[in-house]
Amino acid sequence: MSKGVTPQSLNYSKWYTDVITKAELADYGPVKGTMVIRPYGYSIWEAVQSELDSRFKKSNHVNAYFPLFIPKSFLAKEAEHVEGFAKECAVVTHSKLKLDEQNNLVIDPESKLEEEIIVRPTSETVIWSMYKKWITSYRDLPILINQWANVVRWEMRTRLFLRTSEFLWQEGHTAHATEAEAIDEARKILDIYQDVVENIMAIPILTGYKSDSEKFAGAVETYCIEAMMGDKKALQAGTSHYLGQNFARAFDVKFQSENNQEEYVYATSWGVSTRLIGALIMVHGDDKGLRLPPKVAPIQIVIVPIYKNDTDKDSILHYVKPLLSEFDKLNIRYLYDDRNKMSPGFKFNEWEMKGVPIRIEVGPRDLQNNNLIFSRRDQDSKQEISVVNASETFNQVLIDIQENLFNQAQQFQNNNTHTVKTYSDFESIIDKGGFIRCGWDGSNKTESIIKKETKATIRCIPFNQNIKDLKCIYSNTPAKYEVIFSRAY
Amino acid sequence: MSKGVTPQSLNYSKWYTDVITKAELADYGPVKGTMVIRPYGYSIWEAVQSELDSRFKKSNHVNAYFPLFIPKSFLAKEAEHVEGFAKECAVVTHSKLKLDEQNNLVIDPESKLEEEIIVRPTSETVIWSMYKKWITSYRDLPILINQWANVVRWEMRTRLFLRTSEFLWQEGHTAHATEAEAIDEARKILDIYQDVVENIMAIPILTGYKSDSEKFAGAVETYCIEAMMGDKKALQAGTSHYLGQNFARAFDVKFQSENNQEEYVYATSWGVSTRLIGALIMVHGDDKGLRLPPKVAPIQIVIVPIYKNDTDKDSILHYVKPLLSEFDKLNIRYLYDDRNKMSPGFKFNEWEMKGVPIRIEVGPRDLQNNNLIFSRRDQDSKQEISVVNASETFNQVLIDIQENLFNQAQQFQNNNTHTVKTYSDFESIIDKGGFIRCGWDGSNKTESIIKKETKATIRCIPFNQNIKDLKCIYSNTPAKYEVIFSRAY
Repeated sequence: MSKGVTPQSLNYSKWYTDVITKAELADYGPVKGTMVIRPYGYSIWEAVQSELDSRFKKSNHVNAYFPLFIPKSFLAKEAEHVEGFAKECAVVTHSKLKLDEQNNLVIDPESKLEEEIIVRPTSETVIWSMYKKWITSYRDLPILINQWANVVRWEMRTRLFLRTSEFLWQEGHTAHATEAEAIDEARKILDIYQDVVENIMAIPILTGYKSDSEKFAGAVETYCIEAMMGDKKALQAGTSHYLGQNFARAFDVKFQSENNQEEYVYATSWGVSTRLIGALIMVHGDDKGLRLPPKVAPIQIVIVPIYKNDTDKDSILHYVKPLLSEFDKLNIRYLYDDRNKMSPGFKFNEWEMKGVPIRIEVGPRDLQNNNLIFSRRDQDSKQEISVVNASETFNQVLIDIQENLFNQAQQFQNNNTHTVKTYSDFESIIDKGGFIRCGWDGSNKTESIIKKETKATIRCIPFNQNIKDLKCIYSNTPAKYEVIFSRAY
Repeated sequence: MSKGVTPQSLNYSKWYTDVITKAELADYGPVKGTMVIRPYGYSIWEAVQSELDSRFKKSNHVNAYFPLFIPKSFLAKEAEHVEGFAKECAVVTHSKLKLDEQNNLVIDPESKLEEEIIVRPTSETVIWSMYKKWITSYRDLPILINQWANVVRWEMRTRLFLRTSEFLWQEGHTAHATEAEAIDEARKILDIYQDVVENIMAIPILTGYKSDSEKFAGAVETYCIEAMMGDKKALQAGTSHYLGQNFARAFDVKFQSENNQEEYVYATSWGVSTRLIGALIMVHGDDKGLRLPPKVAPIQIVIVPIYKNDTDKDSILHYVKPLLSEFDKLNIRYLYDDRNKMSPGFKFNEWEMKGVPIRIEVGPRDLQNNNLIFSRRDQDSKQEISVVNASETFNQVLIDIQENLFNQAQQFQNNNTHTVKTYSDFESIIDKGGFIRCGWDGSNKTESIIKKETKATIRCIPFNQNIKDLKCIYSNTPAKYEVIFSRAY
C-alpha cells in the first residue's frame, strides 16, 4: 500500500490496473480472463445495484432468475444474435469427471451431453423461450422483468472491470403489446441509467442511439449512455434496446390482442454491468489513486487518531465519540481507524488510494483547541474546524464533493469535445483524444472507412439533432445525422 | 389458476409441484435440470436474502464475488472435495461455436481449451487460491467474506427448489488465525441461520452436527439446521462447516502468527440456498396452496373490492383509501386488486393459492356499515371489523399469523418426533414418517446398515447430549450419541 501508482501521464493503462490492485477493488482469477471482485470493489457495486434496483422497482419492474445454461440451438434462432455471440461462448460438453488409471482427474467420456450447452452471454433466448409459455393474451402484458446475474463472453485480452470473460450485470427483458409502449420503456430505462450514473456515480454522460454497425445483435434500435474517461477515450456505460418483434418471431411468441387479433409481442432488453466500476475509476481517479463520489463510497469519512500512547488514544476516542454518534444519526458511513503499529502517514496513503471523500485527523493538540482537521479527497488543502456541530458541516461537505466531482468530470468532457468541420481536423484531433461532434452521411461505408483510418467509432447519435447546413465529415455530402465520434474502450 | 392443486394426501410430490406452478413461484428451464425462478418466487428469495445479508454485515462480514469458472486441477487438490463433486460437474471444453458447411451451429474444434474448466459446484477451491495471495500475516486475519452466487451440480432427477442443476445461494468463506475462532465463527453463523429460518420464515428447526458420512466433502465438522416437511420427511435447510486446515493445506495458505510462527490458516464455509423456498412451501402449504409467513410474503394483505358497476367501484376505492395510506405508513405490503373482468371468487382462489396472509373484501354493504370483512390464510373463518383504526388491527393480525404459522409447524414437528428404544419400533415408525430420536453407537457400519434397511439417515447429532443409560438402537451397545434419524429430501 505504501508504494504509489504509476502516474496517469506515464502509462494510463498501468495506472488503471495499479489503482484497482492497490485500492483492493479486484484481482485476477485463476482461469484466464476471470476477475475476483474484492470486498471494497463489491461494496461499490452494491451501492450502484441498490440505487438501480429501487428505481426499477418504483417503475413497476420485478426481479426474477433465469438459468445460466442455454441449449446451443437457442442461440441460432435469431440470426444476428448468433453472429454476435457465437465466437465468444463458453461451451459445456460433459457433466462428469473421473479419475483415470494414473489417478489423474479427467473428463468422463460417458457423460458427453447430447446437445452442447452454452453459458449465457446474455439471456434473450432463454427468456423468450419462457415468455412463449407465459404469454397468450394482452392480459399477460406487459411483462417487466429484470435479473441480476453473471454472464460469460470469452475474452482473450483481459482488462479488469472492462473486459473479463465473466461479468456481473443486470439485464431487463420486457414484453409489450405495442411498439410505442416498448420504445417508451427502452427510453425510460435510459433515463434511469442516466440518473444513476450522473447523480449517484457523478459521471456525466451523453445519450443517444447507436448506428447500425454498433447496435446490439438482434436489436432494432440501441439507445446508449456514453462517458469520457480520464484518457479522453469513450466508454459505453449502458445500453437499452428496442428489439421490435425479432425475438418474438424467433421464439414464436404471439398474443391475442384486445380486439382479438393474433400479434407478435414487442420487446426491449437493457443492461448495465460491473464495467461501470471501471468508468468510475477512470473518470474520477488521479495519481494518488481512487476518488469516490460520496454516494457510492463504502467509507465516506475516515477518522485517523494521532497518538503516541494509550492515554492519548483513549482521550481522542472520548473526544470524537459524540461526533461518531452524530454520524450514525445522519447515516454517514465512517471508519474510525485506530489500527496500531501503523503510522498515520501509512493510513493517509491507504485512504487516499481508496478514494475516501473526507479524512479527519485528530491529535492531542486538537483536543485542547476543540478543533478537528480534515482534508477533502477532491482538494489538496487541509482545513481546521470547530468540533461543535461538525457533523452538519461534514454532511454538507459530502454533498459538495459529490457535486464537485461531477462538475470536474463535466468540465473535462466539455473541454475535450470538439465540433469539427474538416476531415483533416478530425484526423489530427482524434489523435489527441476526446469526443468529436460532426456530420455523418449515414452510410455504413463512411463509418467503416473512418474507423479503419482513425480507429474512431460513432459513439452515439444524439437524440436532439440539428443538421441544417451540416456536411458529412468524410464524404462532404449533406449530413444525415450529427454524431459523436471517439476512440473507445 | 381456477383449478386447484392435487391434495397432499393423494400425492404429496404432485401437490408440491402443483403449488409451485400455480402460485407462479418457478418453472422448468429449457436445459434439463434447470429452473426459472419467477418474480413471485424470487421476491420471497429477496426477502430471505435481505434478512440474511443484514445479519452477515452486522457481524462484520463483507460481500465479494469470485469467478464462476474453476480450473479442473483445483478440484483435485483436496482429496475428499474432489470425490464429493467430480461426479456432478458441468465441464467447459471449448470457447467458440461456428457455422459448418451445412450451416449448422457447431463447436469450433480450434477453440478447445488447454485445461478444462469446471463450473463451480461450490467455491472453496477458487477462494482459497486467492486467499493464498492475500494472506501472509496474522494482520490479514480474519477474512470474513460472503458471496451471493449461482452454483452448478449436475442433477438427473429435478425437483424445483430442492434439486436443480443450478441453484442460487450464499456461501461464506472465512479464514482465521486459530481453531477456536474458526469453530466459533461456524457456530455463530448457524445461529444466524436459525434466527432467520425460525423467526422470519417461521420454520422450526433442529440444530446439531453431522455424522462423518453426512459431512461436507472437505470439512472437519458440519453443523446443520434440519426441518420437518409436511410429509414428515427431513430437509437439510442450511449447513456451516468448520474446515480445519484442510483447504489451507491444499492451497498452501500459511500466515505469520503474532509470535512469528508460520502456521496454516483455519477455515469455515457455510451456505443456505433457494432450497429454503422449497422448505417454506412444504412446511406451511396446504391443499389450497401456499401459506406465507407475513415477514417473507411479497404481498401481506390483498384488498378485493366487490362491485357491480363503476359507481360502486369508485365509492369502494374512496372508502378504503385512508386505510391504504395507513398501510403505507406502517410499511405493510398490500395490493389493491381491482382488476376488471375477473370474479371475486377467481381472485380469492388466486390469492389463497399464492398464500397471501390476509385478504380483505369490501362491498357496497360494508360501506353502509362502516365495516370490513377479512380472512386469515391460516384460519378458515371470515371476520368483520370496523374500518376505524383497522390498520393497527391488521398489523397485529400479521404478527399473530407469523407466530401461528411457526407454532403450527412446531406442533407438527413435536407430534411427529418419536423417542424410540427398539429397532423394531424404529422400523415401523420410520414408515409412518417423522423424526426418530434414539441412541447410536457412533459407528459408520451401524449408520449404513440402518440407512440400507430403512432409508433413514442421521439428520443431526444434537449439540446437547444426554446419553446416560442410552443404548444404540441397532447394536444395543452403549450409545455414543443421541441422534435424530429420518428419511430426508
